[in-house]
Amino acid sequence: LNTFGAQVLYDFAAEPGNNELSIREGETITITNQNIGGGWIEAKNSRGEVGLVPEDYIEVSNGYIYIYIYCMYIRAEDDEWDEEWDDVKSSGGYAESEAGEGGAINRGGAHGSSMKISRNNNTHNKDVIQFIGEVGPVWAYPDYQLDCVVADPKKGSKLYGLKSYIEYQVTPTTTNKPVNHRYKHFDWLYERLLEKFGSAIPIPCLPDKQVAGRFEDEFIKMRMERLQGWMTRMCRHPVISSSEVFQLFLSYKDEKDWKMGKRKAEKDETVGVMVFSTIEPEGLPDLDLIEVEQKCDQFNRFTRAMDDGVKDLLTIGNEHWKRCTGPLPKEYQRIGKAFQNLSSVFTSSGYEGEAALTDALTAAGKTYEEIAQMVAEQPKKDLHFLMETNNEYKGLLGCFPDTVGVHKAAIEKVKEADKLVAAGKITPSDKTTMSKRASTMSYSLQAEMNHFHSNRIYDYNRVMQQYLEQQVKFYEMVKCLNNIKS
Amino acid sequence: LNTFGAQVLYDFAAEPGNNELSIREGETITITNQNIGGGWIEAKNSRGEVGLVPEDYIEVSNGYIYIYIYCMYIRAEDDEWDEEWDDVKSSGGYAESEAGEGGAINRGGAHGSSMKISRNNNTHNKDVIQFIGEVGPVWAYPDYQLDCVVADPKKGSKLYGLKSYIEYQVTPTTTNKPVNHRYKHFDWLYERLLEKFGSAIPIPCLPDKQVAGRFEDEFIKMRMERLQGWMTRMCRHPVISSSEVFQLFLSYKDEKDWKMGKRKAEKDETVGVMVFSTIEPEGLPDLDLIEVEQKCDQFNRFTRAMDDGVKDLLTIGNEHWKRCTGPLPKEYQRIGKAFQNLSSVFTSSGYEGEAALTDALTAAGKTYEEIAQMVAEQPKKDLHFLMETNNEYKGLLGCFPDTVGVHKAAIEKVKEADKLVAAGKITPSDKTTMSKRASTMSYSLQAEMNHFHSNRIYDYNRVMQQYLEQQVKFYEMVKCLNNIKS
Repeated sequence: LNTFGAQVLYDFAAEPGNNELSIREGETITITNQNIGGGWIEAKNSRGEVGLVPEDYIEVSNGYIYIYIYCMYIRAEDDEWDEEWDDVKSSGGYAESEAGEGGAINRGGAHGSSMKISRNNNTHNKDVIQFIGEVGPVWAYPDYQLDCVVADPKKGSKLYGLKSYIEYQVTPTTTNKPVNHRYKHFDWLYERLLEKFGSAIPIPCLPDKQVAGRFEDEFIKMRMERLQGWMTRMCRHPVISSSEVFQLFLSYKDEKDWKMGKRKAEKDETVGVMVFSTIEPEGLPDLDLIEVEQKCDQFNRFTRAMDDGVKDLLTIGNEHWKRCTGPLPKEYQRIGKAFQNLSSVFTSSGYEGEAALTDALTAAGKTYEEIAQMVAEQPKKDLHFLMETNNEYKGLLGCFPDTVGVHKAAIEKVKEADKLVAAGKITPSDKTTMSKRASTMSYSLQAEMNHFHSNRIYDYNRVMQQYLEQQVKFYEMVKCLNNIKS
Repeated sequence: LNTFGAQVLYDFAAEPGNNELSIREGETITITNQNIGGGWIEAKNSRGEVGLVPEDYIEVSNGYIYIYIYCMYIRAEDDEWDEEWDDVKSSGGYAESEAGEGGAINRGGAHGSSMKISRNNNTHNKDVIQFIGEVGPVWAYPDYQLDCVVADPKKGSKLYGLKSYIEYQVTPTTTNKPVNHRYKHFDWLYERLLEKFGSAIPIPCLPDKQVAGRFEDEFIKMRMERLQGWMTRMCRHPVISSSEVFQLFLSYKDEKDWKMGKRKAEKDETVGVMVFSTIEPEGLPDLDLIEVEQKCDQFNRFTRAMDDGVKDLLTIGNEHWKRCTGPLPKEYQRIGKAFQNLSSVFTSSGYEGEAALTDALTAAGKTYEEIAQMVAEQPKKDLHFLMETNNEYKGLLGCFPDTVGVHKAAIEKVKEADKLVAAGKITPSDKTTMSKRASTMSYSLQAEMNHFHSNRIYDYNRVMQQYLEQQVKFYEMVKCLNNIKS
C-alpha cells in the first residue's frame, strides 16, 4: 500500500513508552500504516521519527478524513484522486462534524426509531434513516418525489463556432423552470456525487462518452434518454436529490449562481467517508455485527448473482435484438416477396376465376412484409426498455462491490477490537466508539440496500409490465393482420 | 438422333423418281430420319437402300407408334425405354386404333361440343373433353370424385424374414375396401401411368426412394403422406383415375386378380403418343394454330415462372423452417431461462414484498419457453403443408416442358405442311389429316392445362387458407400466453 501525506489538526503529546509520536497543529506527516486499529495510525514526521498518532487528530491532505475505522477509502488510488490531491484545501474533519450539527431527529414516523444523516456541514436540511421492522433501516423519503425531464437537445457553439456541443434542457418537477446543461456538466455532477457520496451510495456511471458521430440524431436521442434515466435515478434518491450540489444542478438561477455554486461544491469537504461522519445514530441500538455481516454477505451474493443474471439477459437480449432487426425481418420480407411473386405469376396464367386466390396470395405477401417491418421495429418497443433498464442496473451493480467492501473492511476492524482491548492497545471506550461508527455505516448500508431493493422491484415491475404489454400488442397486431387477410 | 428399328405393317410400292422406298408387310426396316414431314419418314431396308416411306405403313418395333405427326416421343431415349425395347410384343398401332373404337360421343353436356378419348383398346369406358367457352377444352369430370386414403403402414417380411418392407393400406372411396401396396407397387403404377399417359398428361414423380433408415417412423409417416398426396392427385385426374391400370391398383380383388391385371397392364400397347390416337375430335372444329401456339407459349412461360416462384418459396421456406426449429426457439428458450434465473435471484434477495415481481418474471420466463416450443412446432402446422404442396407442384411443373414440347414439335411440323403441299410432297388431304391430329393434341393439351390450372387454384386456395388459419392460431395462442402472464 502507498503511504499518504496528512495534515495535523491538533497538538498531540506522545505518552512515553507507548510507541506514540508527538505532533503539532499544522505539521505535515506521512501515514506509514493505517492498519493499526483502535483509533490509531502509524505516521512518520519530517524528522523521520515514526510512531502512533490518534486518527482524529490528523487529516489527509486533500480534506478527506482518510481513515474511518481503519478502512481505507478504496477510490484513493485512482488517478483522478491523485490529480485532485493538492487542489483542495484541507479543513474540517470527522471530529468536528461528529461533534457539531445536531439537528432535529425524525422520530415522528410510525416506524419506530430513526437516525439522521446531515449531508453537508453548510446546510441544515436533514435526511433521516427510518427503522422499519419489515425491511430494516430505510432512508426517509420526502413526501414529494422529485423528478426532472431531460429534453430538447440543441446544438450550441462557442469560440465563434469553432467548438460545438449539445445542450439538453433539464426541467425539475419542483420549479418547472428549465435549465440547460451540456454532457460535461452532467459529468461534473457525477464526479461531485461520486466524491461526496461514493462511499455510502453507489453512484452509477453516466452513459458512455462517444466522440465519433456524437451529433448524429440517433446518438443524441439515446444519450438524452440515458441521461434522463440517470437523472431520474438520482432524483429518486432522497440523500442525493436533496443535496446542495444536486439542487444547484437542477435549479440554478443564472450563470453567476451556477458558477458560484460550482466553485462551492468543488470546495465541499464533507466528501468520501466523511459522509458517514454526518450520520448520527442517536437513540438507535448498535447493530449485531454477525447479523450485519450475514446481511452484507447475502447482499453481496445477491448483487453478484443479479449482475450475472442481468449480463446474461443483456447478452441474449442483444442477440435477439440483432436477429429481430436483421435476418428475421429479411426472411419475412423474402417470404412476403415470394408470395407476391407467386401471386403475380398466377395472375399471368390467363385462366379465369383466380382473383380470390391471387388476392389472398398478395395479401399474405403484404402481411409478411408488414410483419417483417413490425418485427424489425418491435425491439425498439419492448426489448429497448428492458435492455436500457438492465443496462442501468449493470452499471449500478458494478458500484456495489466498492460500497460493500468499504463496509466489510470496517466490520473486520471492529471484530479485531476485542483482541486489541485484551492486548491493552485500545481502551474499552475506544472499542465502543468503533462499534458505534461501524453501526452507523451498517445502518447507512442497509438503508442503501433497501433503497436498491425497493427501486429494483419498482423498476422491474414497470419494465416487465411494459414488456409484456408490448408483446401482447405485437402478437395482437400480427394476429389481426393475418385475420384480415385469411 | 439415334436410328430405330421398325416393322412394316403394309405393302408400299415406291413411286419412281420420288425418292421413295418400296417395303413389304413383315419386313424390318431402320428409320434413318423421322424429321421429313408430310407423313413421310426416311428409312433403310436390310439391303441398305434408303428412301421415304409413309409413316402409317410402319410401326416401331416395341409396339409404340413412334412418330405421331413427325413428333418424336421424347422419352424414347431413356435407359428404361431401351430396357423394355425388346420385351413388348408389337401389335396394334395408330392406324388400327384410329379406324376402330368409335363409341358414344358425349354431347349431352351443357357445355357445347365435345370430343372423346378412348383410353384403351380393350375398354369401352369413354372419357370426354368438353369444350367450355370460358376456359376452353376441359376433361369431362365424373360426377363422383374418386379419392383414396393411404394409411396404416405395416412392416411385412418375406423370404423367412430376410427381406422386410412396409405395406400401406390403400382404401378407395368407391369400394371402401382396403388393398395393400408396397412402395414398389406405387412405383410400378407410376411407370405404367408414365408410359401410357406421359405424352399427354404430366405424371409427377413419386416421393423419393430412400434406402437408409427407411423404416424410421418419421420417414414412413412422411412417405405415406406424400404417397397420399400423389394418389389424391392421380385420383383427381379423370383420365388417369378411370384408367384400367389405376382401377386395378385401387380395387383388385385378390392376389390372382392383381397379378393378372399387372401382366395385362404391362402388355398394354395403347401407350406413349398412342394415347392421342384414342382421341377422336368428332364434330369439333380444328383449332387455329397461331392461337394454339400463343396459348402454349403463354402456358410455357407460366409454368416456367411458376416453377421459379415455387422454387423460390421452397428455398426461403426451408431457411425459415430451419430458423424456426433451430436458432429462434433456442433464443426464446434462453430468454425464458434468463427471466426465470433473474426471478430466482430476486427471490434470494431476502427482501419482502416482491412475490408479484418474481411471479411475473417466472411467468414471463415460462411463457418464453412455451413460445420457444410453439415456434419450434409451428412449421409442422403451417409451413409443412405449404412446403409439401409446393414440393408437389415443383415435381409436376418439371413434367410440363416435355408434355408441351411434344405438342410444340407437332405444331411445327403442321406449319411446314403448306410448303410440303406446294412442293408436291404431300397431298392437301395429307395436310388435313395432319391438322386434325395436331388439333386433337391441342385439345388434349388444353384440357390438361385447364386441369392443371383448376387444380392449382384449388390446391393453393386450400394451402393458403390453412396456412393463414394456422398463423392466426399461432399468434392468438402466443398473445393469450402473454396476456395471461401480463
